Amino acid sequence: VFMNPSLRTRASMEVAAGRLGSRVTVLAGQDAWKLAWEDGVTMDGDEAEHVREAARVLSGYFDVIGMRSFAPLEHSSDPLTDTPVARFAGHSTRPVVNLESAAFHPCQALADAAVLSQDFGTELSGVKFVLAWTYHPRALPVAVPQSTLLMAARMGADVTVAVPPELALSDRLMAEAGVLARQHGGTVRAVSDLDEAVADAHVVYAKSWTPSAVAATPDAGNAIRTRQRDWRITHARMQSTNSGRFMHCLPVRRNVVVDDDVLESDASLVQRQARMRVDANVAILAGLSERAQ
Amino acid sequence: VFMNPSLRTRASMEVAAGRLGSRVTVLAGQDAWKLAWEDGVTMDGDEAEHVREAARVLSGYFDVIGMRSFAPLEHSSDPLTDTPVARFAGHSTRPVVNLESAAFHPCQALADAAVLSQDFGTELSGVKFVLAWTYHPRALPVAVPQSTLLMAARMGADVTVAVPPELALSDRLMAEAGVLARQHGGTVRAVSDLDEAVADAHVVYAKSWTPSAVAATPDAGNAIRTRQRDWRITHARMQSTNSGRFMHCLPVRRNVVVDDDVLESDASLVQRQARMRVDANVAILAGLSERAQ
Amino acid sequence: VFMNPSLRTRASMEVAAGRLGSRVTVLAGQDAWKLAWEDGVTMDGDEAEHVREAARVLSGYFDVIGMRSFAPLEHSSDPLTDTPVARFAGHSTRPVVNLESAAFHPCQALADAAVLSQDFGTELSGVKFVLAWTYHPRALPVAVPQSTLLMAARMGADVTVAVPPELALSDRLMAEAGVLARQHGGTVRAVSDLDEAVADAHVVYAKSWTPSAVAATPDAGNAIRTRQRDWRITHARMQSTNSGRFMHCLPVRRNVVVDDDVLESDASLVQRQARMRVDANVAILAGLSERAQ
Repeated sequence: VFMNPSLRTRASMEVAAGRLGSRVTVLAGQDAWKLAWEDGVTMDGDEAEHVREAARVLSGYFDVIGMRSFAPLEHSSDPLTDTPVARFAGHSTRPVVNLESAAFHPCQALADAAVLSQDFGTELSGVKFVLAWTYHPRALPVAVPQSTLLMAARMGADVTVAVPPELALSDRLMAEAGVLARQHGGTVRAVSDLDEAVADAHVVYAKSWTPSAVAATPDAGNAIRTRQRDWRITHARMQSTNSGRFMHCLPVRRNVVVDDDVLESDASLVQRQARMRVDANVAILAGLSERAQ
Repeated sequence: VFMNPSLRTRASMEVAAGRLGSRVTVLAGQDAWKLAWEDGVTMDGDEAEHVREAARVLSGYFDVIGMRSFAPLEHSSDPLTDTPVARFAGHSTRPVVNLESAAFHPCQALADAAVLSQDFGTELSGVKFVLAWTYHPRALPVAVPQSTLLMAARMGADVTVAVPPELALSDRLMAEAGVLARQHGGTVRAVSDLDEAVADAHVVYAKSWTPSAVAATPDAGNAIRTRQRDWRITHARMQSTNSGRFMHCLPVRRNVVVDDDVLESDASLVQRQARMRVDANVAILAGLSERAQ
Repeated sequence: VFMNPSLRTRASMEVAAGRLGSRVTVLAGQDAWKLAWEDGVTMDGDEAEHVREAARVLSGYFDVIGMRSFAPLEHSSDPLTDTPVARFAGHSTRPVVNLESAAFHPCQALADAAVLSQDFGTELSGVKFVLAWTYHPRALPVAVPQSTLLMAARMGADVTVAVPPELALSDRLMAEAGVLARQHGGTVRAVSDLDEAVADAHVVYAKSWTPSAVAATPDAGNAIRTRQRDWRITHARMQSTNSGRFMHCLPVRRNVVVDDDVLESDASLVQRQARMRVDANVAILAGLSERAQ
């Protein structure tokens, strides 16, 4: 169920399901009814169906449901855990895979973790991992950086989040990541200087984002981002790393987020990340299938 | 071929086809050319293809074609039987399944009949079946109520159509239902009082609709519906039934068409109806396959 | 990957892939990101992904990629060979099938060649083949006529392109077709009189088109086409042929491009052409699969 469009996530999940012999139905965009999410609501507006019915009906048709919905809930008790995907999963009698919510993109993070494991082992203790905010002309969601941060922390890396202060990830998420990192022998810190952050890094994970509170006032958000146009991963910046790898979830804007020569260099893991999406999705579906038996 | 969007019908048909080992291609919305339907027309307008070519071409590609098209034909000889789906079927050399036309939604009716059979047996003689019009902010098509009425009549129920007089189903359809009911030991009547209708009912099948003649003048249609805002299936109304079941084809607007507590009660069959769509579609496809051999 | 909509090509390719036991993922319209095509570009506009990433990522997911994109490249070195489809193929590590580019529609031409082979043998030496421009209210692309011309020339037919001079196919393509025809015992000529062209023809392949240079000024293009409203394949014109067959790739506008009675006559091959699309696509996919082994 794609309430927002997808290329990589949908294609890699369809391929993964096919490898396991599953059939896939894609419900997307115009197919999906606008859902009502609140209990007890009088549905006299635009919403034609309540999530209670939709989740139960699809539970009756499919063994596993994947769902993408970027929009936050209007009356969310907690934007980190109370999203449309989570609300849908609460009413589904089948497992629901988060194909990217307003808060997290766990399928991407699992694939990225697998790529990192190939190069550094399953524990990133002592690995300098930089989550580097970059300039981008649009306000992008925080799902990928939030999942990336938690993933790197859980693997025990020494994580540096490089981000202009106005665009910082939430204090709560940073605190949660800090706890996870300490449990696994790592650390988490935020800095506001990209050059300082990438120096000696083993991994530079680039991603632009704009927290929703900032994105709510587009002009202000644009102004903040535009002042940081030089937050771009260049050859010179990669030269200052410790033979650092470059990562990005794609799609990526060339020469805006990262320069051509970095993307085309051997340091770039972006194609391995994309291919790993299939294997990560196979693992997710196979795990759910095992659990169901 | 979905000329109008679909969630349940498409998903349940894809799952049903998969159970039978069939492959499915979905042609929807933007994929479907705008078709010309009239014979002898000079196609110098918007329509890029004539139904004669489209139906024959798809007959050459697929063993069974399912088609949804809500729009009535502009020059229809008979809105009950002469629809785009019927016209398409007339030019197809393969069986065409009506996935909801302007007039009927037989796949839904077959699933509903199967659910009723589980609870009451295949003959509904003596069963008080109420087709209850309900308020809805939008003008909805008559395909489901028309198919529901014919289905209940054919099963021999004592059918009561509860509907404000301005929104009555066509005289011709009511007459046809009456004949069918008499042939199978049942009756058909229309009443304009919802409370009277549901008293002692065994089944309350709720559905909003606006006949196309009324919907053609939206303001008048809205005014008529808005005067009937209290036509809603409430707990109190269900209490007055004879341990009545609640049915609806979904999607349903909670607390507009039916109250939360009715939907969440054991009397509600809506989830069984939705799940039965798969089995009904399996039966349809298997039957067509047998006939083809 | 359908950057432009499709009915026949998509359906016939899905059916063909299914016959070979392949699974198919369709990425279309809203799913497909807007791609950047130029090397070295700073992607601060609308394009979210570069063709370099997109082609490589999809190469990692799929064994064969089919792509449709009608739009020409903005900075093309050669509109005949340098199209989005060709550029994509240049970065893909898997075979890319052209599902219709701005320049060519080879899957259609292969199916048409197979139909012609059934009736005339694999060599069309001595067969009078007319590619007949027809009136159409819209400016249609040149991909089908260009592929048809090269196909007929390569099969050794005596090809006549009947077209108003202002709408002629490019000199370069006509020259290329002439060389191919001579190599295979055929000829190529252009005439500006439809009646002269179809007299004694064995095959009349009808198609409207407007070269992009003319379509760039819509009013002028419309005026040119409208002056040629009588370029339509009529019964009388078919009577003047040598028991000629009528061909068209569909969709076709009845009584604008061709009259009803021609389409419904035994001379019409359009339904055989459409059905042959499946077999031609099976041949393409099977050939690619063999080559990969």
